[in-house]
Amino acid sequence: MEFAEMILTPKLDNVIMHGPFHSPVDGTLCITGHHLILSSRKEGIEELWLLHQNIDYIERKPNNVHGGGTLIIKCKDFRIIQLDISQQEEFINIANSIEQLSSIENPVKQYPFFFRPMYHTLEDGWTAFRPESEFNKLLQGDEWRITYINSDFQVCPTYPSIVIVPKNIDDDIILAAARFRDGGRFPVLSYKHEGGSVLLRSSQPMTGPSNKRCKEDERLLNSVLGPGKRGYIIDTRSQTIAQSAKSKGGGFEMEMHYPQWRRVVKPIDRHHVLLDSLSKLVEACNDIGSSMDRWLSRVDGSNWMSHLKDTLNCACLVAQCLDQEGASVLVHGSEGLDATLLVTSLAQIILNPDCRTVRGFEALIEREWLQGGHPFPIRHAHSCYSTTANGRTKAQAPTFLLFLDCVSQIQNQFPCSFEFSTNLLIQLFENSYASQYGTFLGTCEAERVHLQLAKRTTSLWSYLNRPDVLQTFLNPMYEPLNKVIWPTVAPMSLTLWSELFLRWVIDQTEHKEAWKRISGLKEHEKELRSKAGRLRRQLLDLEKEAVQLGIISAAN
Amino acid sequence: MEFAEMILTPKLDNVIMHGPFHSPVDGTLCITGHHLILSSRKEGIEELWLLHQNIDYIERKPNNVHGGGTLIIKCKDFRIIQLDISQQEEFINIANSIEQLSSIENPVKQYPFFFRPMYHTLEDGWTAFRPESEFNKLLQGDEWRITYINSDFQVCPTYPSIVIVPKNIDDDIILAAARFRDGGRFPVLSYKHEGGSVLLRSSQPMTGPSNKRCKEDERLLNSVLGPGKRGYIIDTRSQTIAQSAKSKGGGFEMEMHYPQWRRVVKPIDRHHVLLDSLSKLVEACNDIGSSMDRWLSRVDGSNWMSHLKDTLNCACLVAQCLDQEGASVLVHGSEGLDATLLVTSLAQIILNPDCRTVRGFEALIEREWLQGGHPFPIRHAHSCYSTTANGRTKAQAPTFLLFLDCVSQIQNQFPCSFEFSTNLLIQLFENSYASQYGTFLGTCEAERVHLQLAKRTTSLWSYLNRPDVLQTFLNPMYEPLNKVIWPTVAPMSLTLWSELFLRWVIDQTEHKEAWKRISGLKEHEKELRSKAGRLRRQLLDLEKEAVQLGIISAAN
Repeated sequence: MEFAEMILTPKLDNVIMHGPFHSPVDGTLCITGHHLILSSRKEGIEELWLLHQNIDYIERKPNNVHGGGTLIIKCKDFRIIQLDISQQEEFINIANSIEQLSSIENPVKQYPFFFRPMYHTLEDGWTAFRPESEFNKLLQGDEWRITYINSDFQVCPTYPSIVIVPKNIDDDIILAAARFRDGGRFPVLSYKHEGGSVLLRSSQPMTGPSNKRCKEDERLLNSVLGPGKRGYIIDTRSQTIAQSAKSKGGGFEMEMHYPQWRRVVKPIDRHHVLLDSLSKLVEACNDIGSSMDRWLSRVDGSNWMSHLKDTLNCACLVAQCLDQEGASVLVHGSEGLDATLLVTSLAQIILNPDCRTVRGFEALIEREWLQGGHPFPIRHAHSCYSTTANGRTKAQAPTFLLFLDCVSQIQNQFPCSFEFSTNLLIQLFENSYASQYGTFLGTCEAERVHLQLAKRTTSLWSYLNRPDVLQTFLNPMYEPLNKVIWPTVAPMSLTLWSELFLRWVIDQTEHKEAWKRISGLKEHEKELRSKAGRLRRQLLDLEKEAVQLGIISAAN
Repeated sequence: MEFAEMILTPKLDNVIMHGPFHSPVDGTLCITGHHLILSSRKEGIEELWLLHQNIDYIERKPNNVHGGGTLIIKCKDFRIIQLDISQQEEFINIANSIEQLSSIENPVKQYPFFFRPMYHTLEDGWTAFRPESEFNKLLQGDEWRITYINSDFQVCPTYPSIVIVPKNIDDDIILAAARFRDGGRFPVLSYKHEGGSVLLRSSQPMTGPSNKRCKEDERLLNSVLGPGKRGYIIDTRSQTIAQSAKSKGGGFEMEMHYPQWRRVVKPIDRHHVLLDSLSKLVEACNDIGSSMDRWLSRVDGSNWMSHLKDTLNCACLVAQCLDQEGASVLVHGSEGLDATLLVTSLAQIILNPDCRTVRGFEALIEREWLQGGHPFPIRHAHSCYSTTANGRTKAQAPTFLLFLDCVSQIQNQFPCSFEFSTNLLIQLFENSYASQYGTFLGTCEAERVHLQLAKRTTSLWSYLNRPDVLQTFLNPMYEPLNKVIWPTVAPMSLTLWSELFLRWVIDQTEHKEAWKRISGLKEHEKELRSKAGRLRRQLLDLEKEAVQLGIISAAN
């Protein structure tokens, strides 16, 4: 179906919009192929310019007396907008159009394929974080190499064409290991810590009910351990889930076959459990009139804070193994597409100061989440307001949001250690659910290549890394700290990420103002410093001139 | 009993101290009349220098095998220190000494009477906030006057010698009103808002079971209302408590006798309810190993956040009446010594930008809490760790802490609107429970005069207002805002005051560092600005000289 067929009422006057922090706006509603627009054509009045892709759920409240009714538009970014439409036919047309347009799944129909930036791209985000250059230093050593075994995405459809494996393991062994791992996700290098210990990730081994083994997989893993050294396998599933996976062909590493590895179970809830938790949390946040009791018990009941704690706990354990024990770690759960990436990426935030810079953080998301194969379009097909009746499935999950929230918690605890502010995290959250950029389209690199995203869409990184844009995400308190940072996971040290969860509920103006003031101080200081330098040079020049002319003595 | 009799073991070697954020310290314990000192005499090692007055409760854990034992010292400022003592006799002696020394009630035996500052007092805090000067502008008008009716503290023992009353009400009427109010606390001026509406406070009227009236009291109150204007009486008790007060001679204003006033009930819990709540909260905060669930349900169960919400809610209502309705307000509960002062002082923080400066905030505490007669030595005789077995009574209450926490909540919501940082609030909290300064000694001005505090002790304000000390409490983001600020009381906008409640639990170094960086930026900006100015002047001088000597042309 073409866009035109879906848009039955492209334009309608006298629609009243109610939204957070502004008075109702009486304006003209326009529906385009990708946007819902409401404009009063008056200056200084709030306008709406919403991607259909951002719409999670529409609630229709027909006005049975006068006709027409109210559309409650619940967005993936948690915002709720209300449109009052007085005409009966248009009310239905518009509701139907928005529903259809917001549920288009075909990626090439989506806005990134139509969006053309108005600025010149300084650095192409599509080529900014290639593994060859990201792992450049490592590849110059004699321990690690690139394998091109997956160059046509046949060995592992969810891996990128290039992955890093031990140099002394050849492709035959890797091929065998891939056959033994769920979805072909054989153990690959995620991060090498400064002490030499490494972080690997994979999917579950396909031991099945008969406890099959794969000597190649064992050899691949053992090759990363030094002689006499032991490693850790962190399983992000509960032992019950891991055990029951066997009946479906999956399983976990048997101790007898991996004697050099100690398996530790650190369960993190996933998929629908996380999405339910998020729904409950956002629902509680939106209920501004509730009592303190009810608010606190709903936050508790949502379990979101517990998910944060569990996740950070697991990431800290991984970081401890790598840093304090100098032991290598393999992380996996079932498919290795969710909790696994969550843990490996958070461990790097803790361990690697580079990941706390803007560029390093972008590279981390690119490596672990995008090239790592987290299926964003599937996981983010719906957000917190969806229900099973309107399209919520078990494949949807806010795992990436949980990651961003964990980063925000660490940021809170180490306010000077991140080059970027919470605003960058919010931008990433928004773009991962609905965007004009192609970065989060496609479920894996294979699909991204097939869709020709690099050619046909703009990368989010190209936008974010423009100096004037970047400026708005910088943390004025940043002081590079070349050290591991150890977040506390005590429950009282974790707090609600208010900048994200409360931004449509509690006015954030005063906090933004404070942040602006700090940034302003920093900017002003920089200006003054260069001004003082300039004046000092002028003074020196003038003095030199005076000395030369004999007006003042050289001693002056 | 003299100090010497209480100190049975003045000095003991090899005592091991365990405390927050440092390794155990092996040192010499000294007990003086006012301090518990532990020193290892090694540089860089934590020392203890604790006022006995700061000790809330001591727990003895004898070591039945080896003799001696462990003393767990729980401080009023929430800190917990553990001392391991190996000798049996000394263990008992020291425990007994500390118990006796920390429960001395006689004010003249306390440290402020012995403390002599090592610095010259620039401005005497004892005379810095006299009502004559504080209300100077108001008293020049023709509506308000000072009454000296209480100059010998006979009319109202808990009022200061000077209070402000309507000019057209003479002392006879006031005397009659005082007889009608609990403890003689007749309605007095607390604050006059810019629009002309006024905030009064008093205690409950003594209507008793027979609903007595007092025409003088009615006349006094009505005199502050403009013709045809109505005022509000905000009662900080529940209607049940107000009703039952009648049987004890108290009561509330009958509508028929105060037709120009609308009475609104806005209950705030008090005394032991608040202290129990604080105990539960601090206990939860100290349990760093608890699960997220348990932590959240204990915060909820403590009810502290609800007390914050109720209090802010009531203060906002008062502020709304004064600012938006332009109506005058009388606030009282029973005695008018606790919740009443809480509400009148918070309303001023909201309404009056002056109260958000350091000086204005000190003046507010002086006016409302100290001169207002809040009996600090009684309320703060114990803090959260006390039990009924060791001295907790119903007269103890953390009402002032609740006030400081409410201010901290407003600070959080308006980070640029306060001249001072949360550190000033913490200083005030600490000094109000145990101090080397005399400010919080005495239950009311009468007692302070009697104790000759102004002559015999140093004022906390004298210390705080020293420029180098003041500097450490300033908010680098402060931008004076000459406006009313409206805090939100939605439950999600109130958060745990972590800088206070978690400071002995979660390491605050990183947050202090961030704050220092912002202050540093501000300082550096100031320095650079004056440096640039200096250089510019030098350059101008040199150029002028050059022009005079004809070296360069004037146009250069």
